[in-house]
Amino acid sequence: MAQAKSPEEEHPVKAFGWAAVDSSGILSPFNFSRRETGEHDVKVKILFCGICHSDLHQARNERGITKYPIVPGHEITGLVAEVGSKVTKFKVGDKIGVGVMVGSCTSCERCNSNEEQQCSKGFVPTYNGTYLDGTRTYGGYSDTIVVNERFTIRWPESLPLDSGAPLLCAGITTYSPLRHFGLDKPGMHIGVVGLGGLGHVGVKIAKAFGAKVTVISTSAAKRDEAITNLGADSFLLSNDQDQLQAAAQTMDGIIDTVSATHPILPLISLLKYDGKLVLLGAVKSLELPAAALLIGRKMVCGSGIGGMKETQEMIDFCAKNNITSDVEVVPMDYVNTAMDRLAKADVRYRFVIDVGNTLNAA
Amino acid sequence: MAQAKSPEEEHPVKAFGWAAVDSSGILSPFNFSRRETGEHDVKVKILFCGICHSDLHQARNERGITKYPIVPGHEITGLVAEVGSKVTKFKVGDKIGVGVMVGSCTSCERCNSNEEQQCSKGFVPTYNGTYLDGTRTYGGYSDTIVVNERFTIRWPESLPLDSGAPLLCAGITTYSPLRHFGLDKPGMHIGVVGLGGLGHVGVKIAKAFGAKVTVISTSAAKRDEAITNLGADSFLLSNDQDQLQAAAQTMDGIIDTVSATHPILPLISLLKYDGKLVLLGAVKSLELPAAALLIGRKMVCGSGIGGMKETQEMIDFCAKNNITSDVEVVPMDYVNTAMDRLAKADVRYRFVIDVGNTLNAA
Repeated sequence: MAQAKSPEEEHPVKAFGWAAVDSSGILSPFNFSRRETGEHDVKVKILFCGICHSDLHQARNERGITKYPIVPGHEITGLVAEVGSKVTKFKVGDKIGVGVMVGSCTSCERCNSNEEQQCSKGFVPTYNGTYLDGTRTYGGYSDTIVVNERFTIRWPESLPLDSGAPLLCAGITTYSPLRHFGLDKPGMHIGVVGLGGLGHVGVKIAKAFGAKVTVISTSAAKRDEAITNLGADSFLLSNDQDQLQAAAQTMDGIIDTVSATHPILPLISLLKYDGKLVLLGAVKSLELPAAALLIGRKMVCGSGIGGMKETQEMIDFCAKNNITSDVEVVPMDYVNTAMDRLAKADVRYRFVIDVGNTLNAA
Repeated sequence: MAQAKSPEEEHPVKAFGWAAVDSSGILSPFNFSRRETGEHDVKVKILFCGICHSDLHQARNERGITKYPIVPGHEITGLVAEVGSKVTKFKVGDKIGVGVMVGSCTSCERCNSNEEQQCSKGFVPTYNGTYLDGTRTYGGYSDTIVVNERFTIRWPESLPLDSGAPLLCAGITTYSPLRHFGLDKPGMHIGVVGLGGLGHVGVKIAKAFGAKVTVISTSAAKRDEAITNLGADSFLLSNDQDQLQAAAQTMDGIIDTVSATHPILPLISLLKYDGKLVLLGAVKSLELPAAALLIGRKMVCGSGIGGMKETQEMIDFCAKNNITSDVEVVPMDYVNTAMDRLAKADVRYRFVIDVGNTLNAA
């Protein structure tokens, strides 16, 4: 068997980014390579990349699936630097976005239904994945990326490249279940649990759909942020029995962004008949009070990202409704500090790396 | 405050049945009374009544909500003995069914949407409930019952009154979620967990919808019953990892009738993307592997009975498709033995009391 080539040698085009090389998760400058721009490919000059909680988990191998070295980053915006001969969506210089996936089989029933995130062979994640050609994928903490145009997003002129970047993960992850589960109707009452990277965008998107939005949190300190900063209609302290009782059976749906174990019976009690509790956090185990689901025919569902068509729809929706993420833009060499702060939830609400201006060749 | 009248005195019309008087759950002859037949009421001469698992739970106060004396029974068939002046659905002598509810507010949004089982004030259960006039409700282990016609079912000529009776609870409880959650499409693959009163009817209804049906059980002894007797297409032993693996991600939906705590991760693994696990058992707590729901956007939902319109639709569907429950018809004085056998799951699959021929005045 041939020796696997090093990241620097396996492709013809030089690339540079920051990578973690072990489970410390500490990132440092890293030379690697990208494939040549194929017929259907777009080469992206990366300008901004959001720091998603997944980046932290995977840099530190907290899910046990990391192969080092890893270049994180799947909330990528930039400019088209080169297009393949058959590319139709872009010309050089266009604004572009790349999100959580960069490939899928594109031929299964799910891919043909514009649900590439459900590809029967598994989608190719933007980093820490294996591409269709067998090589590793490296993410957006880097100078360039080469992506099949199917897995790219046309970037609306009015949407900022920095504060818009996190929408490519946090935006679609909250937009998709609101749409898919029919929680996008004006006048609905939607709860959002947790005010982090996902939750704060979820509040804005649900508001834009015309919902009455209640932020649900265990921390009273979040009230002002929720109502004054994010425009939520109300705030509910989830460990206050009186508040829970007063809001019982009033919500059409709840988007639960919490990724730690937490009680869901109080949330189920807030749902109307036929109400839906959507879990976005990959919690290994929760206690499910099944009997509480029966009488009201309630449901608990999980959701991840959406397909490419829906992601484009979401980006266009956000541009039209002036929705962006609240971000703190940081230089590349701040990334390890940012990761530490993110681990402590010390950010409102998303770090975005200014890759274009601060990633210098080592 | 006026002394509450005794069950025998509170209404003008004498009635007779069998009641449990304490948490032993042992039933014995019981004289009580029924209201006069009102304008919109139908008086039913009861011929058959199924013995539902709920009857057992409530006779023994296993849910802690029983008020004694209790006359169980909510799978009632019989003949119309008297009709009120404004009744339009029936004439004397017609076949009739009465199921799990005998009343609701009839004016809330849910009632107006033909979802009386979700009445905002709670529906009135056929027994161990409080009727709109404040009196207690008594069920079908009795000679007659007086019911508002909205809460009655027109009984198809071709549907047997004995083996059809259990459909009024077990039938609607499996039919309703298959319809409501879109699991009624021909060619779908539906799993049914547990082969009891609910499960065996669920298999027949899912087959009639055109599904491929797999019975899922922890007991290999159920294989023959499932395939030979009930017409299931296949059988899966839920504690056999190889069988689980072979059937992974093949099912559109699963109807889970088990009312004891059990692992649901193996069931979730059987679901396709967007698959639905419907829980029908009022289990207090299950372990929910939330992360397993996320990637496939799967859902876990609860469901109970349906509304009156849907119950009529279900009865008509069963008549058209020759679906009945497999029953063991027993005399009234066998009821305590039947309850003991039911507690041991020693019945295939439903006891039905021959009330018309065996309930004699004490």
